[in-house]
Amino acid sequence: MEPIKKFELSKEYLERLQTGIAASDTAYILDSLDGVNVADIAAILDELDTSESLYVLRLIESQLAADTLIELSDTTLEKILQELETKEIASWIELMDSDDGADILNFFSEKEREEVIAEIDDRLKLEQILELLRYEEDTAGGIMAKEFIRANKNWNIVQTINEIRRQAENVEKIYSIYVVNNKQQLLGRVSLKKIILTAAETKIEDIIDENIISVPVYMDQEEVATLMRKYDLESVPVVNAKNKLVGRITVDDILDVVQEEADEDIQAMAGVSADIEESDSVFTISKARLPWLLIGVIGGLLGAKLIGFFEGGLSKYLALASFIPLVAATGGNVGIQASSLIVQSLASKSAFDDTPWQRFFKGFLVALLNGFVLGGFVFLVVIYLYGFEPLFGITVGFALFCVVLLSSFMGTVTPLVLHRFGINPAIASGPFITTTNDLLGLAVYFGVAMLLLNL
Amino acid sequence: MEPIKKFELSKEYLERLQTGIAASDTAYILDSLDGVNVADIAAILDELDTSESLYVLRLIESQLAADTLIELSDTTLEKILQELETKEIASWIELMDSDDGADILNFFSEKEREEVIAEIDDRLKLEQILELLRYEEDTAGGIMAKEFIRANKNWNIVQTINEIRRQAENVEKIYSIYVVNNKQQLLGRVSLKKIILTAAETKIEDIIDENIISVPVYMDQEEVATLMRKYDLESVPVVNAKNKLVGRITVDDILDVVQEEADEDIQAMAGVSADIEESDSVFTISKARLPWLLIGVIGGLLGAKLIGFFEGGLSKYLALASFIPLVAATGGNVGIQASSLIVQSLASKSAFDDTPWQRFFKGFLVALLNGFVLGGFVFLVVIYLYGFEPLFGITVGFALFCVVLLSSFMGTVTPLVLHRFGINPAIASGPFITTTNDLLGLAVYFGVAMLLLNL
Repeated sequence: MEPIKKFELSKEYLERLQTGIAASDTAYILDSLDGVNVADIAAILDELDTSESLYVLRLIESQLAADTLIELSDTTLEKILQELETKEIASWIELMDSDDGADILNFFSEKEREEVIAEIDDRLKLEQILELLRYEEDTAGGIMAKEFIRANKNWNIVQTINEIRRQAENVEKIYSIYVVNNKQQLLGRVSLKKIILTAAETKIEDIIDENIISVPVYMDQEEVATLMRKYDLESVPVVNAKNKLVGRITVDDILDVVQEEADEDIQAMAGVSADIEESDSVFTISKARLPWLLIGVIGGLLGAKLIGFFEGGLSKYLALASFIPLVAATGGNVGIQASSLIVQSLASKSAFDDTPWQRFFKGFLVALLNGFVLGGFVFLVVIYLYGFEPLFGITVGFALFCVVLLSSFMGTVTPLVLHRFGINPAIASGPFITTTNDLLGLAVYFGVAMLLLNL
Repeated sequence: MEPIKKFELSKEYLERLQTGIAASDTAYILDSLDGVNVADIAAILDELDTSESLYVLRLIESQLAADTLIELSDTTLEKILQELETKEIASWIELMDSDDGADILNFFSEKEREEVIAEIDDRLKLEQILELLRYEEDTAGGIMAKEFIRANKNWNIVQTINEIRRQAENVEKIYSIYVVNNKQQLLGRVSLKKIILTAAETKIEDIIDENIISVPVYMDQEEVATLMRKYDLESVPVVNAKNKLVGRITVDDILDVVQEEADEDIQAMAGVSADIEESDSVFTISKARLPWLLIGVIGGLLGAKLIGFFEGGLSKYLALASFIPLVAATGGNVGIQASSLIVQSLASKSAFDDTPWQRFFKGFLVALLNGFVLGGFVFLVVIYLYGFEPLFGITVGFALFCVVLLSSFMGTVTPLVLHRFGINPAIASGPFITTTNDLLGLAVYFGVAMLLLNL
């Protein structure tokens, strides 16, 4: 017995479905999709061809089709939307929550969007979507939904339950009832549990929980996520500048935000420029990887020129070449470590964070300590194990020490600067920092060698 | 007006509080903490000394102290638990949810744990905690709570509401009522919304939603997170092998899991070995960073030996040294890109994933394409811009091509192998892959040079 799901996705299932589609066996298709969760249907459509997916979407019940549409991967969704007729899209958007409808419209150019909007008959839904489209996609306003239950503070429990009944179909998940005054300003919340356990005539304002956290429409989605995580919120009301309640964000959307931001950071660190998946084509994957690789290669070519300048010294002291990879690799590693700590603390900033100067000072102390340990270690190995003369050992060890200090400084500064300019600082933990540190490291290494070895 | 929170953490606030603590000004302390969210109180205590934190915890109301305790950072919590008396800990654990109580007990050695357990008077709570302690910490059983509302399928709405009333104090957040049969086996769920909107005499089994997703106690927490994210669940029931309902996991815990796993991966990629924060001491940070740096340095020293073998060739063709950083850096970058894609797909595995052979083949094609582009580019620059002879250009370009292929292969294999052995595959995207690829890259580079340049 498998208690997790009644239904398991498998390649065999997929193949049978494809055969069914090829044979236009509608009875078989509908039967095999019966009772399958929308997220699973979406996962199946992600694997099918666009024409097959379209066939299935048009076959199943409209509400299910609308729900499936918003669960599709972006790549699949984009292909399908291009094939759909304006009327079809509009009718499905009418069946979606406002935030999902707005997300779908965001896939279109301004002109196409207007065409779809013209076909939406549900006035209220249209109004809600148009409002949501005004907000930046990655802010509280951009991810909130207009579907939520609001109660006036003067209502009693019975009136509130009637409102819940009226909205029951629109609002799928109810966590809290938000309490507002006559100006629609947010005053607090009442939990569903409290509604159930309180006498029918009790007034909402008598059971209101005023200790409530709300977020402004312009707040960055990452900040909303941090807040909801910190305060263990399952939903958070969104207010405008006048504290008017304009929407709510639920935790399932935030879970996606947290995962997406983490994936973005990891991709930035790995030097992959677009959001790619393993199932993408060879060309797509290659295209997403080449830019950073090329930057690395150009850095390497500049490095070659740099080393070329020191050819005279190198020919006198050939062993210098042997330690190039050591210096370069350590610089890269130190830079990534330093920057990742800064990136992490930028993501979860708190009132008690160190100031930039404290950060530099602390980073400097850590680098001093690590540089000393690593430089000393290399010095010992170079003269005792490898049998070079002491001066050469000092050169390599001291150069390494300097490279650790410099790379640590670069690793601290770069993410702070990128962050200041509104660029994802995680980029600084990737090929960017390695490439810059390689070049700086080489310059320092040969500079120290010239000086100490009198080249 | 600041609609986000009524209270803002600040360094000034912290300093005033510390003055209050030093002066044992209990009235001031209690007043300044009044109405402050537990998560914020915990953030404040994280900044105080252990003795100051203890003073505050013992001063505030016990329930608040218990709630604050579980919100503290692990480092602070550990220090505080060491200072507390067994009786105190036990009395606070009685006020916690069972899963939090179990988490606290997991900080102690077996002997200390037994001592605390002996002081817990609440029989039911103790039983629940003892059950939870049996499960691995990072499985569904380890993160679930025993506090949830269950209704028998034969109950009606009134009976169910009575159960909610009875449990209201224990179960803070109710998302769903889980429906069980007489054997306590999970049959389905009923939403609170439905309870509110259904007539009092209606039987639970008439409004049950049987299309429910549950997880087994042994499921890995990362898998639970993927499931809850995929199916947009705010809570998920946990069942044992006989489908008996034994607990529930709420999404706020999962949000933490997602963030922790992401942080872990990023730290693994950055080559930081322990969970450190910016506020940790210089020695702690240094200690967490040194191991991977040392491994990198040892790799570099081996690289130096390797290059030493080719000294003869190098002396004939000094320009070879110039392109060492290019080859090493590209190898590292390619390896990290390839491995990060595998790590990502391992984390969100689906039924339609490629087999290892398909992965190798696709990775090989991408590497072939990228290697060709990069190798060709370098070849052109080396002979036309840098003015080297064609054979040397071919050597560098072809070596780079080989290094791209090899690094891509290593980047694909390493995470798969680590994953197979139960090690976090993200390590493979960090210093480990860079160090190995550096060495392999050097060997390939000089190997190709020996062959083509006849050294």
